[in-house]
Amino acid sequence: MKITDLIEKKKQGLALNEEEIYFIVNGAVNGTIADYQLSAFFMAVYFQGMTIEETTIMTKATVESGTVLDLSKIGNVVADKHSSGGVGDKITLIYLPLVAACGVPLAKLSGKGLGHTGGTIDKLNSIPGFNCKLELDDFLEKVKKTGLAIASQTHNLTPADGKFYALRDVTATIDIIPLIAVSIVSKKIASGANCIILDVKCGEGAFIKTLEDAKKLSQIMVEVGNRLGRKICAVITNMNEPLGHAVGNSVEVIEAIKFLKGDYQRDLKDVTFELAIQTLIKTGKSENRDSAVKLLDRVLESGEALQKFKDLIISQSGDVSVIEDYSKFPQAKNIIEVKAEKSGYINHINPLEIAKATKLLGAGRTFKDDKIDYAVGIYINKKTGEFVNKGEILFTVYANSLENIDEVKQKAQKAFVIEENKIPLEPLIYDVIG
Amino acid sequence: MKITDLIEKKKQGLALNEEEIYFIVNGAVNGTIADYQLSAFFMAVYFQGMTIEETTIMTKATVESGTVLDLSKIGNVVADKHSSGGVGDKITLIYLPLVAACGVPLAKLSGKGLGHTGGTIDKLNSIPGFNCKLELDDFLEKVKKTGLAIASQTHNLTPADGKFYALRDVTATIDIIPLIAVSIVSKKIASGANCIILDVKCGEGAFIKTLEDAKKLSQIMVEVGNRLGRKICAVITNMNEPLGHAVGNSVEVIEAIKFLKGDYQRDLKDVTFELAIQTLIKTGKSENRDSAVKLLDRVLESGEALQKFKDLIISQSGDVSVIEDYSKFPQAKNIIEVKAEKSGYINHINPLEIAKATKLLGAGRTFKDDKIDYAVGIYINKKTGEFVNKGEILFTVYANSLENIDEVKQKAQKAFVIEENKIPLEPLIYDVIG
Repeated sequence: MKITDLIEKKKQGLALNEEEIYFIVNGAVNGTIADYQLSAFFMAVYFQGMTIEETTIMTKATVESGTVLDLSKIGNVVADKHSSGGVGDKITLIYLPLVAACGVPLAKLSGKGLGHTGGTIDKLNSIPGFNCKLELDDFLEKVKKTGLAIASQTHNLTPADGKFYALRDVTATIDIIPLIAVSIVSKKIASGANCIILDVKCGEGAFIKTLEDAKKLSQIMVEVGNRLGRKICAVITNMNEPLGHAVGNSVEVIEAIKFLKGDYQRDLKDVTFELAIQTLIKTGKSENRDSAVKLLDRVLESGEALQKFKDLIISQSGDVSVIEDYSKFPQAKNIIEVKAEKSGYINHINPLEIAKATKLLGAGRTFKDDKIDYAVGIYINKKTGEFVNKGEILFTVYANSLENIDEVKQKAQKAFVIEENKIPLEPLIYDVIG
Repeated sequence: MKITDLIEKKKQGLALNEEEIYFIVNGAVNGTIADYQLSAFFMAVYFQGMTIEETTIMTKATVESGTVLDLSKIGNVVADKHSSGGVGDKITLIYLPLVAACGVPLAKLSGKGLGHTGGTIDKLNSIPGFNCKLELDDFLEKVKKTGLAIASQTHNLTPADGKFYALRDVTATIDIIPLIAVSIVSKKIASGANCIILDVKCGEGAFIKTLEDAKKLSQIMVEVGNRLGRKICAVITNMNEPLGHAVGNSVEVIEAIKFLKGDYQRDLKDVTFELAIQTLIKTGKSENRDSAVKLLDRVLESGEALQKFKDLIISQSGDVSVIEDYSKFPQAKNIIEVKAEKSGYINHINPLEIAKATKLLGAGRTFKDDKIDYAVGIYINKKTGEFVNKGEILFTVYANSLENIDEVKQKAQKAFVIEENKIPLEPLIYDVIG
């Protein structure tokens, strides 16, 4: 078999068979196929696509390229949740204790985030002492004992995906829907859960901009997951404004704690609950939507969900006193309140501008080895739909360096669209697939 | 400027500007752009194409990536001819002395051929002593003195093209018409001639299979050449059967010598004359087609063209006695005459089958460093349009090794389509562009 023949075949718009796809995936990992051949292949896939059959086989081959975790020791049903990434996306921090409190075991592996803020692991690392570097046995033990655990993804999962992603990143071939599906689903399958809940973010602040693309991606991921024997569901959610109030690392953890204490924003609750509802139904924990909502309301109001978060922190060596004393989190040197320049209804908050401002503060990383500043971030005091008076506080900047503070303020200020007439709020859940 | 942005731009179907194209070409040569980025770019060009403006700029940038020969010492008008390559294509061997005998100086640089037979240089190397490894000054001196010279292309011409071609060859991105145009025209421009005559072969035995593609390629090459200040013309010629009788190296030189002695096939003459006519008109040597044909007929019949070939051999240290004594050429150990298995009209001779058979004999090379056997080849005794009786000699195999002789005979035999009813001959010249 020759890789040039396979590139040519895809270039002509033909589907590759199982043997051919394994040849590519294995060749990529063991180095017998050159990077310049892989990148030409990816570009051909951008233009010609892949069938659901091809996508399924490539997902399977990618899973098999590395370690596959065996979670059967934990129980018959283990759930995992994935977000395609958004601004102010602290959903996982709330979802994990909430769903675990309902009795669904959660084994969450997470990668380092590249972006305007850190990923879930980085956010949790802002809790003093919190340790995500868990050996496999320890990780499984913790899930069994506490009902949930989160570990950084260091177990040689899906090396083919790592190779593919790094190459796609430098060849303008990231935005290929079947390859995105392969990447997400293969990682989740290799992580071992048999119930997979996907939060597919859609909008200005997300990687996927249009509902059409989000649906296409979701349908492919669900179909591939099903064909590979997983219970799987994709919830397409709105990412046209930051989720909740806080964007950063520790500020987002604090917002999650407040949520679990009963102090929550509509948007955060709607999205977290939808993902939790689907999880409870898919895992068979709840029979239907109504009973799922009842169960979630109960564990939230009773404090069981908050307790589960405390259990998680203790289990992973974190300082649990942060729950009551937010000053235990890393503190920013400067807290700057920025006021509205005019009165009116906030009709839109551009998530990308907020994200860029937060990145400027040092909350995220561009390269894998960049350091993150856990303390910095932006707090949105007025959300979309609210009326703001000129001079009222619009947002608050938590900064350490003041070097580029004017640029940060300008970018964040630019994000707010304040108008005389209120426009209706957008839906938060666009669709549920699977 | 970032290469990923440029790949993305082309992926979206947008045209790149001058600065961007130079960035790519120069980055490819100096290694600041990775091979995997170039190959992704090429694949995007396959799907999105390039405008004539982009193609022209890329040709210019490719020319400027290396040495550009200055032929002004030779005279105001210097012509060069290029063939996109066919089976039995000994046209250059006849064209060079024929046109030089008309008084047009010809400075021909030629690369090593990869294919079923060698390239023009290899064929000439089958003349004992013939030397194509000429230093630049020597090459120019010979053109000035003899009116023609041919040298192997070793002057660091268009290194960008070398880089691009090698990469395209292993990434299934050869068949991209604007990039083929860049490759051909840049090499011809860097070679220094101001009048460029292109033989664009079209058909089964050529790289370009359809007349539509041949026209597209020709139009682009002529337009790019004109924009870069060259007189240029593309003749689209038929490559649905081998040209002339002989396919190999020395056997093709012998056929060329016979042609110059007045013993020629219709197809060889038609194609060679068309290219020569266009050259004489483009260089201003002849006013029109009629006077060009008259001049060509004269130098052919008077023996001036044959004399020019002798001059070329002597000038480049070859053994000129081969002209009269073909036994001076390397001789094959075995000469095998293969007979027709049935009677009928030869309606087609598949050039690819003949080419494969010739390659099996050892007449061509797959890799740059492969050795060529000058003596071997196939002589087609009966051409398309002729009637053959069962048992008459159909073709003759010149072989050294007999190891795979049955396969050679089978392949060549398969090339002949012999039928009861004669079908009309195809035209040899499809179109002249420019």
